[in-house]
Amino acid sequence: MDQHRVMEGVKSFKKNGIRITPQRMAIMEYLATTESHPTADEIFKSLTNKFPNMSNGTVYNNLKCLKKYGFIKELSFGQSSSRYEWKTSFHYHVICTSCGKMRDFNYPELKEVEQFAKIKSGFEVSRHLFEIHGICPDCHNKTQNGEMDDPLLPTFY
Amino acid sequence: MDQHRVMEGVKSFKKNGIRITPQRMAIMEYLATTESHPTADEIFKSLTNKFPNMSNGTVYNNLKCLKKYGFIKELSFGQSSSRYEWKTSFHYHVICTSCGKMRDFNYPELKEVEQFAKIKSGFEVSRHLFEIHGICPDCHNKTQNGEMDDPLLPTFY
Repeated sequence: MDQHRVMEGVKSFKKNGIRITPQRMAIMEYLATTESHPTADEIFKSLTNKFPNMSNGTVYNNLKCLKKYGFIKELSFGQSSSRYEWKTSFHYHVICTSCGKMRDFNYPELKEVEQFAKIKSGFEVSRHLFEIHGICPDCHNKTQNGEMDDPLLPTFY
Repeated sequence: MDQHRVMEGVKSFKKNGIRITPQRMAIMEYLATTESHPTADEIFKSLTNKFPNMSNGTVYNNLKCLKKYGFIKELSFGQSSSRYEWKTSFHYHVICTSCGKMRDFNYPELKEVEQFAKIKSGFEVSRHLFEIHGICPDCHNKTQNGEMDDPLLPTFY
């Protein structure tokens, strides 16, 4: 994760005549340097010390703008809040069904399965969705220590 | 698709003291013999000639019951209505992003990717979601004939 990403964003916004406010800059820096796939609320909470007057709405509007210009991806899972990540090279996600945490993992894109499905179904195939569900180490430890009900009965959906 | 599935369902319901009404029998037969992954509404419309007094609620309640006893699977995609299928051997789905139609395709279960993700992330992996999105031949033909806007801009989500 590096400053180079943020500078790319700044350059593109300037090119499109979009103002870089300190809040927008901070949100970009936060997303470009985290691997935690935060929700809008988590971003808001992380930046509230730095910008005590910033509203939740400012975070949402900035996320919308960053998404519109193709810098971030919005990730949805079940009925929980969307999570956001800086667009990087191709990867898949493993998702905790208990707390919603997401982790990236690199694996060759399953293009040959798309091709197979295309031949079998006659569909014009455009993309696929592949995600792995399980319990993250934190939630697993909490269950082991009796701090949490069995997360294998998912509460997240 | 065969009558054997329906008889299995009947046997299990009888064993659990659940009454087999003519409507329940018809819904079971419909689902056990179709490959179209119908919505509750489609099932209702298909059976309304045979049972003009049957309500939409009867269909929903029967689907709930069939799901509870493990005979059918409820499939969700985007924000559209759930679709239902008789539980059969393992398979994946290819889904039309224009009309929501689903088709099965057999492909070896991607267990080795689950295993890979487990090692990389430290998660206790329990399952994965893999579905392929595209445009079905019917919607593709409609676009070619100018009967429909370009479905490659998905209207289904």
